[in-house]
Amino acid sequence: MNRNEMMARVKAEMPERRWTHTVGVMETAVILAGRFGADAEKAEQAAILHDVAKYWPTSRMEAIIREEGLPGDLLAYDKELWHAPVGAFVAKRDFGVDDIEILDAIRFHTSGRERMTLMDKIVCLADYMEPGRDFPGVHKIRELAEHSLEKALISGFDSTISYLLQQGKRIYPLTIAARNDLLLTIREAEQ
Amino acid sequence: MNRNEMMARVKAEMPERRWTHTVGVMETAVILAGRFGADAEKAEQAAILHDVAKYWPTSRMEAIIREEGLPGDLLAYDKELWHAPVGAFVAKRDFGVDDIEILDAIRFHTSGRERMTLMDKIVCLADYMEPGRDFPGVHKIRELAEHSLEKALISGFDSTISYLLQQGKRIYPLTIAARNDLLLTIREAEQ
Repeated sequence: MNRNEMMARVKAEMPERRWTHTVGVMETAVILAGRFGADAEKAEQAAILHDVAKYWPTSRMEAIIREEGLPGDLLAYDKELWHAPVGAFVAKRDFGVDDIEILDAIRFHTSGRERMTLMDKIVCLADYMEPGRDFPGVHKIRELAEHSLEKALISGFDSTISYLLQQGKRIYPLTIAARNDLLLTIREAEQ
Repeated sequence: MNRNEMMARVKAEMPERRWTHTVGVMETAVILAGRFGADAEKAEQAAILHDVAKYWPTSRMEAIIREEGLPGDLLAYDKELWHAPVGAFVAKRDFGVDDIEILDAIRFHTSGRERMTLMDKIVCLADYMEPGRDFPGVHKIRELAEHSLEKALISGFDSTISYLLQQGKRIYPLTIAARNDLLLTIREAEQ
């Protein structure tokens, strides 16, 4: 499937404002890929597809999680997390994406994970800081992203965790594992 | 070993201000035990012993963690966490405490854990809110503790997690598991 066809099909899966967000993530992912030495084409493809399942009905996402053996612990957590692994599944099945780097970047773009790849980091960070985003702390994330993917991403996870604390919501353990691992990476690099 | 002997031996393990804190935790644990229907004598004994290893040299704590097969993942996290499982070990070996409820309450008083027992909750919360404590949010914790152990404890964990976010420190996964589990317990109770 070529780029234009992929974009048209993804656009049809979501409301206009979410497509505008997706375009922002695409542009930001390409910039970050250039800045930090990743494959810009792969980063863009992951960005195009990252929210493909975002507006699917909950029941359709749940069916895929159950039937396709995606991590079942997700079902006990906020539905906001579900579209990421479901999106990776859809990218493979319906869009013919076979590249594991791209699929994992889609799969972990919301939660993060331990030992995030360069591609994981770029797509996750682009999702936090694309130009349309506006939340407390987004300016700091953009500033940090000038020099450090890891520091910017930690700042993004900090925002998410703070928000969940304020809202009295549960925190998905993989996000804590991702943040802990990034802090360790930075500490080891600075030693 | 009788209560006075135990208190004298624990007092000798720490500076004066930490003993004052311990007395505060004892008194608070007894009040909370009365309020929420736990065994006040056991709660007090756990409180007496909870910080017994707090001022041990790191190397002595580390040796016990390694030699006695305590959870090794602790060694990768903040040393602040170590004295709790080491304290439980010392309570058993050196103070002859055999009661698993008391030992677990000491073991998990800093981190919390999934499925905290009533005794775990009381000692952990007493440690957060004893009269000598003064940190942002402590008044809210004391207020919540008038009616709900779980809500007060979540508020305590929220303070710890916020502090670790601000400090750029890693968060021990068991604390997230404890908070998530308490939120679920409350949600189920309210349904």
